[in-house]
Amino acid sequence: MAMKLNTRYLKSFVNEHELKAIEPQVLAAHRTLTEKSGLGNDYLGWTTLPKDYDREEFSRIKAAARKIQSDTDLLLVIGIGGSYLGARAALELLRSPYYNNLKKDTPDIYFVGNSISPDYLNTVLALCEGRRVSVNIISKSGTTTEPALAFRVFRELLEQRYGKEEARGRIYATTDKARGTLKELSDREGYETFVIPDDVGGRYSVLTAVGLLPMAVAGIDIDAVMGGAAAAMDDLAVGDLCKNDCYKYAAYRNILYRKGKQIELLVSYEPAFTMMNEWFKQLFGESEGKDQKGLFPASVVFSTDLHSMGQFIQEGSRCMFETVVDIQNSTKDFFVKDDPENLDGLNFLSNQNMSVVNHKAMQGTILAHTEGGVPNMVLEVPGINEHEFGYMVYFFEKACAISGYLLAVNPFNQPGVESYKKNMFALLGKPGYEDQRAELEAKLG
Amino acid sequence: MAMKLNTRYLKSFVNEHELKAIEPQVLAAHRTLTEKSGLGNDYLGWTTLPKDYDREEFSRIKAAARKIQSDTDLLLVIGIGGSYLGARAALELLRSPYYNNLKKDTPDIYFVGNSISPDYLNTVLALCEGRRVSVNIISKSGTTTEPALAFRVFRELLEQRYGKEEARGRIYATTDKARGTLKELSDREGYETFVIPDDVGGRYSVLTAVGLLPMAVAGIDIDAVMGGAAAAMDDLAVGDLCKNDCYKYAAYRNILYRKGKQIELLVSYEPAFTMMNEWFKQLFGESEGKDQKGLFPASVVFSTDLHSMGQFIQEGSRCMFETVVDIQNSTKDFFVKDDPENLDGLNFLSNQNMSVVNHKAMQGTILAHTEGGVPNMVLEVPGINEHEFGYMVYFFEKACAISGYLLAVNPFNQPGVESYKKNMFALLGKPGYEDQRAELEAKLG
Repeated sequence: MAMKLNTRYLKSFVNEHELKAIEPQVLAAHRTLTEKSGLGNDYLGWTTLPKDYDREEFSRIKAAARKIQSDTDLLLVIGIGGSYLGARAALELLRSPYYNNLKKDTPDIYFVGNSISPDYLNTVLALCEGRRVSVNIISKSGTTTEPALAFRVFRELLEQRYGKEEARGRIYATTDKARGTLKELSDREGYETFVIPDDVGGRYSVLTAVGLLPMAVAGIDIDAVMGGAAAAMDDLAVGDLCKNDCYKYAAYRNILYRKGKQIELLVSYEPAFTMMNEWFKQLFGESEGKDQKGLFPASVVFSTDLHSMGQFIQEGSRCMFETVVDIQNSTKDFFVKDDPENLDGLNFLSNQNMSVVNHKAMQGTILAHTEGGVPNMVLEVPGINEHEFGYMVYFFEKACAISGYLLAVNPFNQPGVESYKKNMFALLGKPGYEDQRAELEAKLG
Repeated sequence: MAMKLNTRYLKSFVNEHELKAIEPQVLAAHRTLTEKSGLGNDYLGWTTLPKDYDREEFSRIKAAARKIQSDTDLLLVIGIGGSYLGARAALELLRSPYYNNLKKDTPDIYFVGNSISPDYLNTVLALCEGRRVSVNIISKSGTTTEPALAFRVFRELLEQRYGKEEARGRIYATTDKARGTLKELSDREGYETFVIPDDVGGRYSVLTAVGLLPMAVAGIDIDAVMGGAAAAMDDLAVGDLCKNDCYKYAAYRNILYRKGKQIELLVSYEPAFTMMNEWFKQLFGESEGKDQKGLFPASVVFSTDLHSMGQFIQEGSRCMFETVVDIQNSTKDFFVKDDPENLDGLNFLSNQNMSVVNHKAMQGTILAHTEGGVPNMVLEVPGINEHEFGYMVYFFEKACAISGYLLAVNPFNQPGVESYKKNMFALLGKPGYEDQRAELEAKLG
C-alpha cells in the first residue's frame, strides 16, 4: 500500500472540470521536469537519487554510523536549512521527538549551527560535558556563518578534549565533492568526508549523506528509506494526472491558490510529525515563495492545536486550505480502560484503541472545517516507518517541483536568502562590504 | 527599562495620519475594556490579576512546588490549549528548551493530555519508568477528552505504583473553584486543588495556578513573574495612544490588516522563544479568528528559519507583516575566538560577542525584508528573565484585547472550538449524539 490523495472533501470547493482544465499545464510541467528543460534544471539530481546513488559511499555512511555508535554518546550535527531539517524530521518521526530523553543503544543527537544564539550554544556545550562527542559538519562551502561559527567552537572542543589526532577521527564532513573551505580542511586534516552532490539543492538533500548519516547513527534503516523513495520514484513517474496522486496534489493546491487561498496548512495528528512540518515548510516555501507569488506554508499538529489555532481555522479569515497527513496506523496502540465510576464520562471509549479515537477526531475535524468553509485534502499514509518516510519525502519533493512549474517559478533557486546575509556582513564590518555599511546604519538610525 | 515598540521600519508602509485616524477607535476600545462594557466582559479577570490574586493560594503553590521538588523526579502536567502552552512557553524561555536534558536540581517536566496520539502516550509512559512521578492535572471541567484520557492513564499508574493513599499526595488538580467532575473527584480523594478563576479564559490563564505551579516546580521565581506583569499593568493603563506602546502595537497590526495583510509573523532570534510563539498564536488566533476575520498568526525563529522561510518572506507573496521580538541581552554571552588560519573567513568576527552578531543579523534582516516589501515592527524586550516574561505576557494579553475590539469581535470567546468535538463524539458513538452519527458517516463515505 502506498501514499494516496483523498480529494473527497474538496467537492464543494473545486469542480470536476477544474482539474480537467489544469491538466494540460500539469502535463507540460511533467514534460519540463522529465526533459530537464525548465528553470533550475541544473538541480534535478534528486529525481533519480533513490536509485542512482553512490553505493560505495552508502556503505561508508553505514560504517561511519557504526563507528559513531561505538565510540560516541552524543553526536552534534552542525548544519542549517536543508542541512538540518530533513535529518531532524526523520529522527523525530522515525524514532521519537523525545529521542534524546529515552533510554536507547544509539547516541544522543543534537543539532547545532542553525542559529546565532549564544544561549543555545552555551546549552549545547553544557550537554556535552562528561559525554563522548563526535561531530558531523554539513556545509557545501564551509563558510555559511551559522554552521561555520559552530564548527569553530566544537572542533576546538574536540581537539582540546581528545588531542588533534583523535579529534580527526571524530569529525565527519558532509560537503562538496571537490571544492570549498570545508573540503580543503577535511582533506588536509584527514576527516572522513561525504558528498553533497552538485545537482541536489539543500532542501532536496535529505536522501543524500546530508540526511542519511545522522539517520543511520540513530539506528534508522537507511536501506528501507531509500527503498521507499525508489518505490515513489516508480509510482509517481507516470505522466497521467488521473493516475498520479502526486501530480493531483500539485494541481489542486494550485487550483486553490488561483482561487485566492493564500495559506496551505499542513495538518497532522502526531506530535512526532512536528519537524516534518518544518521540513515541508522549507521545501515548499523556499521553492515557491518568489516573484511575489506562492502559497504561504504553515502547519498545525492536532488535536493539540485544535485548542489554539482551531478557532481561527473554524471561523476566522477564509484565507487557507488544509492538507491533512493521515497516518493510518500507529506504531504501537494504546487501549482506553474502563472506569467503573465513569466520573469523566469517557466510558463510551472503554476498550477503544486510542488510534481509532485519534482517527475519529481527524474525520470529525475535516467535516467541521469543510463545513466552516476551509477546503481539505487528505494524504493517506499507511504508517510511520522508514519505507513510508522515504516515499513521503519523494512524493513531496516531486509535488513541489511540479507545483513550482505550475506556479511558473524556478522551484530550485533561492535568490532571496542572500539579502539578509549581505546586510549582516556589512553591519558586522566584513571586509568587502564597507560601502554598504554607512548606508545601512543610517537606515537603522 | 521596559518593553518598547519600535515603529521606525514601518514608515514606508504606514503614514503618520493613519495612526491619528485610528486613534478614536483605540480610545473607544480602551473605554470598552476599562468600563467592562464590551463583548466577553465576563472574562476580564486577567486585567487586574497581576495585583489582585489570592495570596494564600500563591503561598500554597510555592509550598506544593517545594514538595514536588523534594519527592519527584518527573512532573507530568496534563492539560491542553491554555492549560498547556503558557507553562511550557515559560519553561522553555526561562529555563531552557532542553530543560529535561540538562542536569539540574528540579524535576523533569513533561506535558501530556494535549493530543490523542498513542505513540506520544506510550513514549511518556516509557519516560516514567524508574522515576518518581507526580501529576498536575489542569482542567476547568475535568471532562475535556484529551486531558481526561491522559488523567485516567496516569492516575492509574500512580495508584498502582504508590498505592491509593500515596498517589493522592502526588496529584495536584488545577480546576474550577466549586463545580465540575475534577473538582468533585479532587474533594473526594483529597487532592490538593488550585483554582482556575471563572473570569479568566484559558488562553489568558498563564498567570494563574494554571501556569504558576509548573513554573514554580521548574524553579522559576513566580513572584518576579507577577511583579513584571504588575509593572506592565501600571505602564499600559494609560488611555493615550502616544504613551501606550501596547495600544500602538494593537493599532498598527489593525492598520496593516485593513490594508490587506493577512498574516502576522511573530519573529524572534532565540530558539528558546519557540513555545512563546505557540502561546502567542493561541492568544491572538483564538481571540481574533472569528466572524470570518482576523490576522492569521504564524511564527518563525531566525536565523534558523531564514534558511527555510526566509526566501518566501523576502520575495514571495506580499501577504504578511513581521512583528520582531528583539531580546536585547542574552542570558550569558559567547565570544568568537580568533583562528590564525581563518579558513572559514570568519575572523572579522574574532573576539566579537555572539549576541552582537545575532543582533546585527536581526537588523540586517529587518532592512532586507522591509526593502522586499514586508512591513516590520519591533518589540524591544530588555532581556530574558522572570520580570520580562511577566511583562510580555501582560503586554500581549492587553494588546490582544484591544486589537480584538478594534477588529470588532469578542476577543474572549471561542465558539468554533466545539465544532470538531461534536463531530468526534458523534463518530465515536457517545451517548446523546446518535442522531448526527449516521449523517456524518454518510459524508465520510
